[in-house]
Amino acid sequence: MNNIYTQLQTLGIVLPPVATPAAAYVPFVVQGAWIYLSGHIAKKEGLAYCGQLGLTMSTAEGYEAAKGVAIDLLGTLHAACLSVGQDLNHIDKIVKVMSLVNSTAQYTEQHLVTNGCSELLGAVFGSRGQHARSAFGVAQLPMGACVEIELVATLKT
Amino acid sequence: MNNIYTQLQTLGIVLPPVATPAAAYVPFVVQGAWIYLSGHIAKKEGLAYCGQLGLTMSTAEGYEAAKGVAIDLLGTLHAACLSVGQDLNHIDKIVKVMSLVNSTAQYTEQHLVTNGCSELLGAVFGSRGQHARSAFGVAQLPMGACVEIELVATLKT
Amino acid sequence: MNNIYTQLQTLGIVLPPVATPAAAYVPFVVQGAWIYLSGHIAKKEGLAYCGQLGLTMSTAEGYEAAKGVAIDLLGTLHAACLSVGQDLNHIDKIVKVMSLVNSTAQYTEQHLVTNGCSELLGAVFGSRGQHARSAFGVAQLPMGACVEIELVATLKT
Repeated sequence: MNNIYTQLQTLGIVLPPVATPAAAYVPFVVQGAWIYLSGHIAKKEGLAYCGQLGLTMSTAEGYEAAKGVAIDLLGTLHAACLSVGQDLNHIDKIVKVMSLVNSTAQYTEQHLVTNGCSELLGAVFGSRGQHARSAFGVAQLPMGACVEIELVATLKT
Repeated sequence: MNNIYTQLQTLGIVLPPVATPAAAYVPFVVQGAWIYLSGHIAKKEGLAYCGQLGLTMSTAEGYEAAKGVAIDLLGTLHAACLSVGQDLNHIDKIVKVMSLVNSTAQYTEQHLVTNGCSELLGAVFGSRGQHARSAFGVAQLPMGACVEIELVATLKT
Repeated sequence: MNNIYTQLQTLGIVLPPVATPAAAYVPFVVQGAWIYLSGHIAKKEGLAYCGQLGLTMSTAEGYEAAKGVAIDLLGTLHAACLSVGQDLNHIDKIVKVMSLVNSTAQYTEQHLVTNGCSELLGAVFGSRGQHARSAFGVAQLPMGACVEIELVATLKT
């Protein structure tokens, strides 16, 4: 595996700073080899990227939103690694992704939306980025965001 | 505890092959003693078992669908064990189940639907199959499936 | 950190007995240092606290409901610790909270509702109580409950 930061550069990805949660929780928790990231909502110009799949957004737009969330998750994952003196090159595995897609009662392409996140993780981490996943349609999301994704990863030990 | 495969035979359960995910993720991830299974949607004759509880399906039908998902999860769990040179007899614990029930805004029996999965896990694994659980109603699921369930388990070490 | 039980007393919190799940699962699973709690629904006088945010309940009422769930989760966490000969003073970290808010398709303050739980955990455990979190709006919950929350924690080793 190449250096992850070189790979990010090749893919044209600039890691964002960690977003400060608006509430009584933290963006990540590291416990031993395990890293838990909070659910990250899709953003546009720093604000919640609002919309509902099947009503105001297409699957292609949802895919791009999920890809944007993946980049924000990588920024937080980088910070989580730094907090224990490591970096993204020490990620052993992206273990699991949970993807919440703001959906009407008729919209059934949550898996295609979520591929925007999953494919980016694969592009960045190769086989280490292949993860277990659940994707489903939720009634609404905080601040009206179109997508929210949380992630579990492990560090090499 | 008896041999799990004998127990499956006694219960008349035939393990299915692992379904290939339609997307950029994998059916399971094994990290040390921990096994994470992706959300598995209910299937009927190889296709998504479509329906919404409270609209087109009864609780009894949902229960059977969740039982079917449990059998598919066992097939994947078997494959996950094999991938690290173990089998289902080396499962230490079914730790957690998350059950997503495709529900109208009025349907409130997600717990009874999910029992279709939980009771089968108990029948197969005995006390090792007793798990923590969350069950809730989602707005929609990929491909219109009526139920999606993910599972976390551990291997004996 | 002070004694957690003294802290509970200072906050006027009386731990409830562990609710018996109505189904084929258990309130908690302990695996090594990890504790998984089942999703706990909001209760009122021993029954499901029914309601939907955006329809029959305000954000302030939802906040109080989530705070009530946090107290029930603490009762179960206490029991989980006891089951392995420990108590709440041996909790190393509240790792993750998943909060399901019964929401209309228009309600977007799930994060503010969930703060009712997160802030209580912070008040009880201090920095050990700061957790990763996902909060989202679900179509419905078992028995019509307004909020359901699950929790992952670790024990000191």
